[in-house]
Amino acid sequence: MKRNIYLRTIPIEEALARVKAVLDRKALLGVERIGADRAAGRITAEPVIARYSSPTFHSAAMDGIAVRAADTFMAREGSPVRLTPEKGFVFVNTGHPLPSAFDAVVMIENVVMDGEAATIEAPVAPFAHVRRIGEDIVATEMVLPRHRRISPYDVGALLSCGAFEISVYERVRMRVIPTGDEVMDFTARPTPGPGQVVESNSMLLAALADEWGMNCLRVPPVPDDPEALARALEEGLDSDAHIVVMVAGSSAGSKDFTKSTIAKFGEVLVHGVAAMPGKPSLLGVARGKLIVGAPGYPVSSVVCFERLLYPLACWLTRSEPRTRQTIAATLARSVPSRIGMTDFLRLSVGQVGSSYVALPLSRGAGSISSMTKAQAVTQLPPEAEGLESGTVVAAELLVDAGELARTLVCVGSHDNTLDILADMLMRRDPSMRLVSSHVGSMGGLIALKNGSAMLAGSHLFDPDTRDFNFPFLAKYLPGLDVLVVNLAIREQGLIVAPGNPKGIVGVADLARDGVRYINRQRGAGTRILFDHHLALAGLAPDRILGYEREEHTHMAVAVNVKTGAADCGLGVYAAAKALGLDFVPLARERYDLVIPEALRDDPKIEAVISVIAGEAFKEQVRALGGYGTDWSGRVMHPGMGLPGEE
Amino acid sequence: MKRNIYLRTIPIEEALARVKAVLDRKALLGVERIGADRAAGRITAEPVIARYSSPTFHSAAMDGIAVRAADTFMAREGSPVRLTPEKGFVFVNTGHPLPSAFDAVVMIENVVMDGEAATIEAPVAPFAHVRRIGEDIVATEMVLPRHRRISPYDVGALLSCGAFEISVYERVRMRVIPTGDEVMDFTARPTPGPGQVVESNSMLLAALADEWGMNCLRVPPVPDDPEALARALEEGLDSDAHIVVMVAGSSAGSKDFTKSTIAKFGEVLVHGVAAMPGKPSLLGVARGKLIVGAPGYPVSSVVCFERLLYPLACWLTRSEPRTRQTIAATLARSVPSRIGMTDFLRLSVGQVGSSYVALPLSRGAGSISSMTKAQAVTQLPPEAEGLESGTVVAAELLVDAGELARTLVCVGSHDNTLDILADMLMRRDPSMRLVSSHVGSMGGLIALKNGSAMLAGSHLFDPDTRDFNFPFLAKYLPGLDVLVVNLAIREQGLIVAPGNPKGIVGVADLARDGVRYINRQRGAGTRILFDHHLALAGLAPDRILGYEREEHTHMAVAVNVKTGAADCGLGVYAAAKALGLDFVPLARERYDLVIPEALRDDPKIEAVISVIAGEAFKEQVRALGGYGTDWSGRVMHPGMGLPGEE
Repeated sequence: MKRNIYLRTIPIEEALARVKAVLDRKALLGVERIGADRAAGRITAEPVIARYSSPTFHSAAMDGIAVRAADTFMAREGSPVRLTPEKGFVFVNTGHPLPSAFDAVVMIENVVMDGEAATIEAPVAPFAHVRRIGEDIVATEMVLPRHRRISPYDVGALLSCGAFEISVYERVRMRVIPTGDEVMDFTARPTPGPGQVVESNSMLLAALADEWGMNCLRVPPVPDDPEALARALEEGLDSDAHIVVMVAGSSAGSKDFTKSTIAKFGEVLVHGVAAMPGKPSLLGVARGKLIVGAPGYPVSSVVCFERLLYPLACWLTRSEPRTRQTIAATLARSVPSRIGMTDFLRLSVGQVGSSYVALPLSRGAGSISSMTKAQAVTQLPPEAEGLESGTVVAAELLVDAGELARTLVCVGSHDNTLDILADMLMRRDPSMRLVSSHVGSMGGLIALKNGSAMLAGSHLFDPDTRDFNFPFLAKYLPGLDVLVVNLAIREQGLIVAPGNPKGIVGVADLARDGVRYINRQRGAGTRILFDHHLALAGLAPDRILGYEREEHTHMAVAVNVKTGAADCGLGVYAAAKALGLDFVPLARERYDLVIPEALRDDPKIEAVISVIAGEAFKEQVRALGGYGTDWSGRVMHPGMGLPGEE
Repeated sequence: MKRNIYLRTIPIEEALARVKAVLDRKALLGVERIGADRAAGRITAEPVIARYSSPTFHSAAMDGIAVRAADTFMAREGSPVRLTPEKGFVFVNTGHPLPSAFDAVVMIENVVMDGEAATIEAPVAPFAHVRRIGEDIVATEMVLPRHRRISPYDVGALLSCGAFEISVYERVRMRVIPTGDEVMDFTARPTPGPGQVVESNSMLLAALADEWGMNCLRVPPVPDDPEALARALEEGLDSDAHIVVMVAGSSAGSKDFTKSTIAKFGEVLVHGVAAMPGKPSLLGVARGKLIVGAPGYPVSSVVCFERLLYPLACWLTRSEPRTRQTIAATLARSVPSRIGMTDFLRLSVGQVGSSYVALPLSRGAGSISSMTKAQAVTQLPPEAEGLESGTVVAAELLVDAGELARTLVCVGSHDNTLDILADMLMRRDPSMRLVSSHVGSMGGLIALKNGSAMLAGSHLFDPDTRDFNFPFLAKYLPGLDVLVVNLAIREQGLIVAPGNPKGIVGVADLARDGVRYINRQRGAGTRILFDHHLALAGLAPDRILGYEREEHTHMAVAVNVKTGAADCGLGVYAAAKALGLDFVPLARERYDLVIPEALRDDPKIEAVISVIAGEAFKEQVRALGGYGTDWSGRVMHPGMGLPGEE
């Protein structure tokens, strides 16, 4: 069985340098003449010189009357000068030419009409309120330098000085070839079966290319067949594209043909970069064009585009890559990192008070949702073994900075009603974004303590007092004054396959042979609840097969059951219902939001409480099933327990 | 003569609120279903739900072999487990389905082949290196919230979970109608005569609309004729546009018909906002559409678009206006401001050391070049009477933040060769931007002293020592260690109309009756040179008609002569030549760059010195005429004077 061997992974900078040393950009990317009116976003290939001055004539800079300055020199308060129409003055509007007999303008506010005559009580200097020829732009002047990215403002300047046509670099044209036997063409709107995936990377790359000012043509997917791949690449090389991208097949597996395909036509310069995700990226040159082998995992593909392809496209157009705004943000959780690799870590970022808190998101290269959830990305340098919680990192913003101030950071337990809350907050004007990180109820309380969250979702049950949350607040957040608001009452139960094939009716059944359980992570309220019920049943954890297998959300637990990876897991009814699973009720519990008192008057917090207390929210929550909303939006106090059990 | 009377100018926020109170956005802007593949940049009209999980099957997360975890539990270093092909393992590549008999993957690096069999020396856990169904996205999950601006990443997520078609708000369609008797349609590539201007605002607005995600249709200019204007507006109201913009005619002059035209069809809500530029902006509503009267001056038009039209367009699509990155920058010069008005001040910004310095640019609403030269804009609040030099302002960046670090701030005397230097710096890789502010030689030295410039252009002549710059450095910059590098030797002379109609051959001729002089500003080396020559000729300044009229650059002086606003001015030969004027040589002088020693090793400064010393620069400078380059790039020392006069 033939396997490719990786070239040594090299730093990104070195990968870029190798291409720049080999590719002849002058031969590859041409210069074209285009109309200045549609030049915004393009890069000038040479300095642009003004053909006309702007303005081309002396003009009034104010509404008023045109006068001869010399006629006004004697004007004083109480001793006005009187000017006759036509000979002594004419009315002028802003922007209109100054009649040749006159050399100054008096603002209309300073003119008193006396019949047909105008009287003024103050002198004006020659050329007062006059825009002179060339005041803005002088003919022969350089209006724009070479290698300038043309702004909308520049369009105005170019047209007004007669530079109607200018020389710019061609837009970089990119051709994207998705590959793989398993991929389905999205244009057919397919339903993927086992082993199949909807091909999405090509349009992800096309959308990125569009955002960064390139043209992109995407062709239909090509199967993992060396001849078909070679044909597709050759078509790309014969087309007008400057860059040909082959998506997937860039790694070193037995069906990874991208490298050998490139080698048929030219030279592979880079195979493997020291980046995670993005490691199996390929760069090559053939027939004077750049060929990129983009990895098949979506986040790897993004890294390949943003850190390799885009900088090279900018180099082709002699422009500097655009940078993202960077802010300093405090990591709310420790993250490990591999030495020798630049790690691109996606972050959820929110503003808490005057500083920013960053919650690391899923690290997987296959997790495109980590990109859609991220507000920022940070680079862990190759020399870092990992970063401790509390470290301040440079976070490159993926969203508008203004959005962070409209972002609520919620850390703690996962609940499906948070999606409803998020949607309703988004619908307000101004809209608010709820970012939730699912680290369990205990994790949420710790985040509040560290100041890395504005609110925490918690449903911690204390068997001794039969109360929720307050006993834990007293223990873990002593001295922190908090407001506790109920989100909903919810039903927890055992999630099982449809028809309950293993006949599970209670916790005791989980100790039976052949019953595989899927657990929640340590610190999750649901795990604490499970442990409580195990204890009630007199069972030790080691009696439960799968006790050590952990998931972080109710939905993930349900997916394990749905796919047969487990027979049972503890979770909310809504998760079972969403995936068509069966549900054995176990307990009702109170899910509360814990909010520092100091933030009570923050308009975002006020918005949250007002949404939760509203009928629209409660209706939607009840529609999920398994939820009660009797107390939603009410402030909780110690000892309240559950509604109906007070 | 009929004149409109301004409505009271109102704050921008109030203007926006008036429109929001009247306009029915739900009726105006529809929702459409579009393919997710081309949805980047659009705004979701409802939450998007995942149709499929991603992935839809268990798959290998690594290249390696698929195994049963239970088979590996006994594997230890030195005591390997041996697996037979097909029954015990199969090879798998990243992303490929996990065969149903297996539940874990061993990375290829940890497999040793022994003939056909695979041996491993460590156990793996169930589902190790397996991407489980729904690991990224779970079917039924909300993938994107409502009112979300769709990113390229979102496109990938939407396609991969089967959300092929989604509901988004329509793109806002804007129709722009340029107006005015004096404007010429740029599409004809006209040559403007006296009283004419090339109409550019419509395309400036169209380019801004495009940048901010709107569609824009521009129609040909309409003359200042009430009936033609009404017809054009009615066509706009009948079209599919959501917003109709009439450019110019929004003020209160006798030919400003925009207000009355809007009133024919609907209601004028706002006439005049408390903003400079931008004051004569109009907002109205007719037939359920928004009508904007944009001022005719280009910078006013920009303010009207960015602060009124764009926020309203965002409100239509339920999105938040995008904000620009804001940095703290120190004003290098005091600026006055009008109480009661928000003043949008354009700034040239550069990084000096670790902080930013902002140089205020031309304030004129007609100066589109102030926008092309600006790296930032700052708002002076209505309550400010002005800001002192040294004040730290919040500067909204118009350029990429990365560009500021590549920007060299040069403050001081103006010289045409600085354009050549700027062009050559822009051509380097990485490119560098030279921002020069023309405040005269003395102003440059003061900027160095205040740390608000990286280099200063200076050509100060000291008659006592017959040396340049050093006597002034000793006096004004004591204790600051500087490097002085010659840029060029240049010829200064009297710039006169072609054919020298007034027969000016020397400074003495300027005292003659009817000779109008145009002077340079106080602190300019050229003014000091002029004063020196006046003294040599035994003339007092009050003998010179126009001595008090000041311009800030050689080109502006030449324009005054060119247009007949003055008969003579002192300046460099290149300025006279550029405008086809005659030149009476007066003196040679040394134009040097003064650079703090502390910055000597800055790569940008090194680049400047290397460019100036290069033959390519010198050739271009000599081609301007009136320049010598014998000493260009050489380090100057006290007492050197001029080449050939040592």
